[in-house]
Amino acid sequence: MNESTPQATTKATTLRVPHEAARRQIVAILRAWGVAAAHADAAGELLTYADLRGIESHGLAMMANYEAHKGQGSFVAAPEVTVVRETPALALLDGGAGMGHQPAIRAMDLAIEKCARIGIAAVTVRNSWHFGAAGYYAEMAVRRGFIGMVTTSVWNSSVVPTFAAEAMLGTNPIALAAPARRNPPFVFDMASSTVAAGKIQLAAILGKPIPVGWSVDGRGAPETDAQRAWENRALTPLGGTPEMSSHKGYGLGAMVEILSGTLSGARHAAVEKHHGRSRRPFNVGHFFLAIDPAAMRGDDGFADQLDELIDALRAAKPVDPRQPVLVAGDPERARHDERSRLGIPYARALLERVRRMAEAAGCDYVLEAPMLEGRR
Amino acid sequence: MNESTPQATTKATTLRVPHEAARRQIVAILRAWGVAAAHADAAGELLTYADLRGIESHGLAMMANYEAHKGQGSFVAAPEVTVVRETPALALLDGGAGMGHQPAIRAMDLAIEKCARIGIAAVTVRNSWHFGAAGYYAEMAVRRGFIGMVTTSVWNSSVVPTFAAEAMLGTNPIALAAPARRNPPFVFDMASSTVAAGKIQLAAILGKPIPVGWSVDGRGAPETDAQRAWENRALTPLGGTPEMSSHKGYGLGAMVEILSGTLSGARHAAVEKHHGRSRRPFNVGHFFLAIDPAAMRGDDGFADQLDELIDALRAAKPVDPRQPVLVAGDPERARHDERSRLGIPYARALLERVRRMAEAAGCDYVLEAPMLEGRR
Repeated sequence: MNESTPQATTKATTLRVPHEAARRQIVAILRAWGVAAAHADAAGELLTYADLRGIESHGLAMMANYEAHKGQGSFVAAPEVTVVRETPALALLDGGAGMGHQPAIRAMDLAIEKCARIGIAAVTVRNSWHFGAAGYYAEMAVRRGFIGMVTTSVWNSSVVPTFAAEAMLGTNPIALAAPARRNPPFVFDMASSTVAAGKIQLAAILGKPIPVGWSVDGRGAPETDAQRAWENRALTPLGGTPEMSSHKGYGLGAMVEILSGTLSGARHAAVEKHHGRSRRPFNVGHFFLAIDPAAMRGDDGFADQLDELIDALRAAKPVDPRQPVLVAGDPERARHDERSRLGIPYARALLERVRRMAEAAGCDYVLEAPMLEGRR
Repeated sequence: MNESTPQATTKATTLRVPHEAARRQIVAILRAWGVAAAHADAAGELLTYADLRGIESHGLAMMANYEAHKGQGSFVAAPEVTVVRETPALALLDGGAGMGHQPAIRAMDLAIEKCARIGIAAVTVRNSWHFGAAGYYAEMAVRRGFIGMVTTSVWNSSVVPTFAAEAMLGTNPIALAAPARRNPPFVFDMASSTVAAGKIQLAAILGKPIPVGWSVDGRGAPETDAQRAWENRALTPLGGTPEMSSHKGYGLGAMVEILSGTLSGARHAAVEKHHGRSRRPFNVGHFFLAIDPAAMRGDDGFADQLDELIDALRAAKPVDPRQPVLVAGDPERARHDERSRLGIPYARALLERVRRMAEAAGCDYVLEAPMLEGRR
């Protein structure tokens, strides 16, 4: 359709920004909105983590969502995060109706601390909101030599259960990370939808169609118009169609909803929708699990054995020799390494939006400096 | 193609068998093979559980696999199951290279007992084998008011990672069950492949083709011939294709492999295959997690809140009013209720095979008695 190649389009429409500049920009805008320092810092950390790894839907682009929700009472800028309950193996935090990043870091820290003493621990958070990329918290456990597992509910329904004509669940992600020795860690982070909502939003912003199977219309038929798919918030559960076992993606989404929402006593978007409500703040729930492999096995062989598994998977015969078999975390790590050096390539349309956001908030716009790449 | 309707075909080629007869038959054959009583009883319980719920791939049909493996040294008939390690929150069992059902029941019992004291517990088993339907063990936790989560590795590679031309992982299932109050429990049990291997085996036995997306050939192209797909053991990970996010199903399978195999110190089929080995016994690993919602929340509201979620999901607007939206466990429960009353409908071809198996083992064949349905 377009004469320019995708590569040329990318070059013409993106600018490389050092990740520390992106982090400073995010924190500056949030602080200007009145977000408490610890919470702004945590959000800056999480959004930069995502953009460095190419998880654009959870990076700087989220600031547009945060801005839209700011004026609607969706979150408290300076919340009081409290420990509601605590036992040697469990804890329940209340996020104080603020952003999710800071209470989530605190919850995973607590799970890790308890796990170090008794080998396993689970911490949940309720009355929270968006916490960024779930894999970040799972990786926190890995740095202590533990397995980390993380799930979160989502405040809006965007995933259509098998046989349903309307969205009932969020994109409800599940992340698991585990430490290897020679290899980088296994870091798995998936939305339980076929694709993340942010991928459809990005396609809508870029004016691109989406593949059959990512979204459905109100009658269960495929929706390939990205703009309509984004407006309808009607994603398929992983699997895509009943014949391809979409009931599994739907079941995974419900499992995440139970671990994150029911276990913590947070609110379920499906229940709110069922009753025709949409109360704010949203009261999202998160779940954090840490397991110490050394405590389970009685030896330190876990990381070595995971190396063997990772090596075997990487050595699998590929369909195309130019595309070797990957292990969870590989694509994100490659992008992290490249973007740490060269900066994060942001779409100019997104940068313009952030510029206006910074101006509206009355803080400096620091993303475009002399290190720019591509045409102005 | 065939003049008879599927319904007529089903009636002509199946017989209804009371589930207690099926259980007795399974136990009798296993005992005749020399399997220890506790292990034969556990297998009878698990296989009957599966057939009652329509999970035919994990029911009586498994006996043909067990028979094939019996002569190959795949499992020890009368194993010694031992507790290798035990802490207040964790335990590691050794299955003694026997069948998996009995050590798995023992492991989940242990996890539940520990969970009752400190709110969460994980138990793994190594040096084990096939343990039947994972959902069974997750449901054990529900009967105590707990959330149960269960995974297992598999001894043979049948799932082809994204971008690979050969199978590396097993069908690596994940199950999660949670207690409701008014509603039956949430019982989710999925293979991380698009479909279970047993579904392809059944299609091969019945001479039916399989849909595009369930299996791939050696060059990554779709395989629709069920017999070839079964022989090749080349299932797709949930998602089916890279565009439909098969990397998520692949990641889930690897996550299950890590929790079940790496955490317990069991063997990985992928590593064996990488080194061109196939040692027996197979040393399969299982993972069992129990969480007490009351200990997490400090109240007994979990089951009530899960009722609200289940009610909301069931009330979602359906695409077709004749097919309401289901919740994980619904189809299995409906079949369980029907089959408990009317008996389990077994394919005559399978019954013939079991008859020959019983004769070869020198024990009575008790599946065909006067309660038969359909033509002889």
